[in-house]
Amino acid sequence: MSNKKEFVKEIANIDEDFTQWYTDVVLKAELADYTEVKGFVAIRPYGYAIWEKIQEYTDKKFKEHGVKNVSMPLLIPENLLNKEKQHVEGFAPEVAWVTVGGEEKLEERMCIRPTSETLFSTMYSKWLNSWRDLPYLYNQWCSVLRWEKETRPFLRSREFLWQEGHTIHETAEEAKQFTRDILDIYVDVVENLLAIPSIKGRKTEKEQFAGTEATYTVETLTHDGRALQSGTSHYLGQNFTTPFDVKFQNRDGEQEYAYQTSWGISTRLIGAVIMSHGDNRGLKLPPKVAPIQAVIVPIAQQKGNVLEVAEKLKEKLSKKFRIELDKRDNYTVGYKFNEWEMKGVPVRIEFGPKEIENGEVILSRRDNFEKITVKLEEIEENLEKLLEDIQQSMYNSCKKRMEEKTTIAYNMEELERNLNENQGFVKTMWCGSRECEDKVKERTGAPSRCMPFEQEHLSDTCVCCGKKAEKMVVWGKQY
Amino acid sequence: MSNKKEFVKEIANIDEDFTQWYTDVVLKAELADYTEVKGFVAIRPYGYAIWEKIQEYTDKKFKEHGVKNVSMPLLIPENLLNKEKQHVEGFAPEVAWVTVGGEEKLEERMCIRPTSETLFSTMYSKWLNSWRDLPYLYNQWCSVLRWEKETRPFLRSREFLWQEGHTIHETAEEAKQFTRDILDIYVDVVENLLAIPSIKGRKTEKEQFAGTEATYTVETLTHDGRALQSGTSHYLGQNFTTPFDVKFQNRDGEQEYAYQTSWGISTRLIGAVIMSHGDNRGLKLPPKVAPIQAVIVPIAQQKGNVLEVAEKLKEKLSKKFRIELDKRDNYTVGYKFNEWEMKGVPVRIEFGPKEIENGEVILSRRDNFEKITVKLEEIEENLEKLLEDIQQSMYNSCKKRMEEKTTIAYNMEELERNLNENQGFVKTMWCGSRECEDKVKERTGAPSRCMPFEQEHLSDTCVCCGKKAEKMVVWGKQY
Repeated sequence: MSNKKEFVKEIANIDEDFTQWYTDVVLKAELADYTEVKGFVAIRPYGYAIWEKIQEYTDKKFKEHGVKNVSMPLLIPENLLNKEKQHVEGFAPEVAWVTVGGEEKLEERMCIRPTSETLFSTMYSKWLNSWRDLPYLYNQWCSVLRWEKETRPFLRSREFLWQEGHTIHETAEEAKQFTRDILDIYVDVVENLLAIPSIKGRKTEKEQFAGTEATYTVETLTHDGRALQSGTSHYLGQNFTTPFDVKFQNRDGEQEYAYQTSWGISTRLIGAVIMSHGDNRGLKLPPKVAPIQAVIVPIAQQKGNVLEVAEKLKEKLSKKFRIELDKRDNYTVGYKFNEWEMKGVPVRIEFGPKEIENGEVILSRRDNFEKITVKLEEIEENLEKLLEDIQQSMYNSCKKRMEEKTTIAYNMEELERNLNENQGFVKTMWCGSRECEDKVKERTGAPSRCMPFEQEHLSDTCVCCGKKAEKMVVWGKQY
Repeated sequence: MSNKKEFVKEIANIDEDFTQWYTDVVLKAELADYTEVKGFVAIRPYGYAIWEKIQEYTDKKFKEHGVKNVSMPLLIPENLLNKEKQHVEGFAPEVAWVTVGGEEKLEERMCIRPTSETLFSTMYSKWLNSWRDLPYLYNQWCSVLRWEKETRPFLRSREFLWQEGHTIHETAEEAKQFTRDILDIYVDVVENLLAIPSIKGRKTEKEQFAGTEATYTVETLTHDGRALQSGTSHYLGQNFTTPFDVKFQNRDGEQEYAYQTSWGISTRLIGAVIMSHGDNRGLKLPPKVAPIQAVIVPIAQQKGNVLEVAEKLKEKLSKKFRIELDKRDNYTVGYKFNEWEMKGVPVRIEFGPKEIENGEVILSRRDNFEKITVKLEEIEENLEKLLEDIQQSMYNSCKKRMEEKTTIAYNMEELERNLNENQGFVKTMWCGSRECEDKVKERTGAPSRCMPFEQEHLSDTCVCCGKKAEKMVVWGKQY
């Protein structure tokens, strides 16, 4: 035993230093690593496998909605970026510029896409003729660059992986409906795949995307009560189709500008999973998105037929589940337990000579550390049930936390106190003015998250100015 | 009928102007389109769906070989690119440089990756400790940039989509074997998925990748007899691991540099499919990679229950095949036939009131235009058999063409004549000198394609200098 590694290294305490805890988990669970390119990370196999599960789930839903994948250029000439005024103001300060190509200075510099509304609009302008061609429902899976000053793996990187959907429609109504349909897909991904409860609603004008008519958002809450924007869907109206001349002959034979949407989720969702579910042992993955759903760790694997049974079990279970067998002989069982807990594998399957003799195995849950002993021949049904149960329990416990951390405030004192003491979401009434929104942000540090679709009438007056309230808004500090 | 569009536009004759024919097919089959970014294309849904099929097939094979996907940064700082001498010489002249990020001039400029050996090597250096960690078998699906002067959609673009695999191993032997295993996957993709016969072999030193020990290649032949490099796998030895300090403690307790491979296929394969299989009606897709395997085109669809039968048939067949139903009412049947032929859909399913009455449908093959009439209730078995047969026939007819266009030359006159008259591959013996290779290129315009694994002894002397021959080489003009 002397030569074997004993324990994985410690991580920061989640309740004492959440920021450090997050970084520790990202690195020690081998999800991502820093690179020599400042602000850019390398996504390692275990992190990328989570992204692949998210892609697979989401791409299937998109395709069921008629969405088709395409690939647009990585670079955007400066004149294209400049065509939509709000858009360029929003993005120009944070893009990377290519000025030299193949040893020659470019006549016009080009930015690496921060998002591709401009390119899609240009191509739609070329392709669209008649109302019969509509809708175009296109999406691309790619990476984009935004030159952030402060970065953090998955949450805010200079480069991140995402999907960006861009559609054009015959009518405003159809485009608006599609924006909402996509938001429903995002809620489905966040809640059902990632087991994270959410609030969905519309962003205020201040917080919406540069160049949009309306931005809809899925907001989630982290372990320490911060808000995380987890997916957005924009109704762009004719804001881009007008300057980009995306028009079609309508049913009355007249030329009309098309109605547009765009929408995206990104690798930030991996950050949401870490921050929503993790604990002091590290990552905790919902079974549906876990690259490894159960890990077999044989005890005293050098004895008798332990390894042989383990191999057979792996083969059998792999037909239905994502299974890993850890038969490394240079690590102690204790080290392995710690490591797989750090990596958040939902179930550990343990057995040694004694269990084999009894025809049993032990199933150990990552989420609440409960252990159950089951008959070896009944392991499949039990594992299936257990994984479903873990998925649901993880959702429930996040939901409970979100409810506990969601409060109501009727005046600025309460709002400030709630945001500082309780963190979380705070609901208030709001008059709808930018002035009040700015004041709240200034005083509390919290921007508005959204105007939830599920509106409640908390009172008649704005939390800030006391004038007549128009909407219920949710506020929350963010990463 | 007066209002209906009659025929798709003409494309250039494949035997008179192959280059124009290629461009016409790319545009008119809606595979890709030019953009406002010079040298960059937009890959449209139909083209991208072919790429998705290639990805799906290939990614599965990679994973069966233990390969895991990751994501590395898009940008490479100049000092990293400069670390391996041959590599920087090969790539520096054709990269795009980012010099400004977020409104500030960068202290060190960065290039957009033309390939990522440098980034993978840097990370491997950070991660690798012991022989027990090896091998690392990583891959990424992404896009890369190379600032080409002359571009053509799919074949040579400033940006292209690809996968780049990068592995490190404990021994040279293992790395060499892995390089060859990957090449076998590429041959499988090209021959079995894309129905294109190939020659596989090793590149000469002159033609190999910048910074490699050995490059292995899959070479295919286009309709007009040009060679197309369709996939390459490189054994890099310790060329990168030494300057990048990728070392590990070996089994003897000593520090040793790891042995490396890299390998890639790209959207160029879509170009290979177009150029290998197409004809004067347009694209011709092998069933296994076709986004639509059969299209239902009802005749006289406004009559009786024609549309109803068509819808039911689509639903039934979609469980097993990729099916499209063309029920547009503003196009003639003739137009639809032409359009689906242009798009290369392997089988067209036709029927009208008469066929329905007889309980029959007509299956029309895209590859040889043969039609068969089958019972409606037996359509599934018939379609399955037909698709298999088309896949095999398409391979066979390419194979026949490749054999016809593969000749032998014993001296420079023959070599030049064969390359000019017959195009195709020309086999010769070769002394192994760079001088002779340069002379052949200069006189014929054809570089060497590879030294095939299946060597033949054609004669004792080099085709160029007449000295003792060392190897059989295949030559061919390329795109």
